[in-house]
Amino acid sequence: MSRCCDVLRLYLVTDRELAGGRPLAEVVERAVRGGATAVQLREKALGAGRFLAEVAELKRSLAGTGVPLFVNDRVDVALAAGADGVHVGQDDLPAAEARRLVGPGVLLGVSVATPEEARRALADGADYVSVSPVFLTPTKPDAEVAVGLEGVARIRKALPDAAVLAIGGIDARNARAVVAAGADGVAVVSAIMSSPDPQAAAAAIRDEVEAGLELRRSP
Amino acid sequence: MSRCCDVLRLYLVTDRELAGGRPLAEVVERAVRGGATAVQLREKALGAGRFLAEVAELKRSLAGTGVPLFVNDRVDVALAAGADGVHVGQDDLPAAEARRLVGPGVLLGVSVATPEEARRALADGADYVSVSPVFLTPTKPDAEVAVGLEGVARIRKALPDAAVLAIGGIDARNARAVVAAGADGVAVVSAIMSSPDPQAAAAAIRDEVEAGLELRRSP
Repeated sequence: MSRCCDVLRLYLVTDRELAGGRPLAEVVERAVRGGATAVQLREKALGAGRFLAEVAELKRSLAGTGVPLFVNDRVDVALAAGADGVHVGQDDLPAAEARRLVGPGVLLGVSVATPEEARRALADGADYVSVSPVFLTPTKPDAEVAVGLEGVARIRKALPDAAVLAIGGIDARNARAVVAAGADGVAVVSAIMSSPDPQAAAAAIRDEVEAGLELRRSP
Repeated sequence: MSRCCDVLRLYLVTDRELAGGRPLAEVVERAVRGGATAVQLREKALGAGRFLAEVAELKRSLAGTGVPLFVNDRVDVALAAGADGVHVGQDDLPAAEARRLVGPGVLLGVSVATPEEARRALADGADYVSVSPVFLTPTKPDAEVAVGLEGVARIRKALPDAAVLAIGGIDARNARAVVAAGADGVAVVSAIMSSPDPQAAAAAIRDEVEAGLELRRSP
């Protein structure tokens, strides 16, 4: 999944509330200028009609950047919008159903916490797994147990060739360690969405991701 | 859409909270025994994974009854479950997108409040429109304006051949008048879901629907 790994370096997950009134497309555009390699639109409170309109708008604003757009949870919205990918959690549609619905041409990511969940997701058609939560974070208050750097390392060890993203409380201070522990990249919500300068925030995290990859290449 | 009209006579929309701890499948089964002709599973609080499991369970329990199962809002869940139909509101995926995703073999219903919305929904591929809300109801506290019997009559007059369902505050006391005003059938939530005897409640409403159809046949 080399295309998948390249786009996983810095994966921005949106959060409208954290954008503090700024248009999502504006924050996303600045994050991409700073080095974000993928964007996931996550909308837990919008009806599917408005969600679809938001995806369509972001899709237009990302056109020509090469940065793929993922839709969280709603496979139907992803299909209607012609999104590049869809991401499902353990409480969403099962990975096998999501893959069956989107066909082979759409990227599919699945949130996992253990090597067993990761193995099953990949067998069911996931292009990448997202280890979550690495650290505890206020944007997912219901997550009670963080997997830590050990959790990332455990999944990398169990699945050496898998495309592995890490999410949960990741920012410029810890991104290097997360990637060094085995992630192909990091997914970030608040450290970018709530930053007054999303471009600088993204650039700083992206630098740390690249430093982490460098550490793994020359240990 | 004659198949559609036959199944619209008494269309049960589920509400887990109103079932008061009874398994949904049990309430549904009793309603079907009482004369419900269609069932829509509506779950605004469940993740798609559990929603899909519930649809699958209801599908099994309806197998062989000839009663079609509709999924509210989530086109992806309907597709994954192989449901007979899907129902979208004005805030959900647009009817045209829903039709494109499900193809021609799945029934599609759309909530409307005006003849204009009804005309557009039918042009976009709806098999039936659901006029809503006919009366104000505690299960949809956000709906502020009821269309009344006049709203039903207006849509019937504008679209004489359309399959028209009516929903919102309908029970055995008003179902006859709603059908007499032009609906092909009624959708019911609380009058069945919260009844201690869903079979008797469904039978009483179904009788009133048939009486309303009789009134329209011999005015």
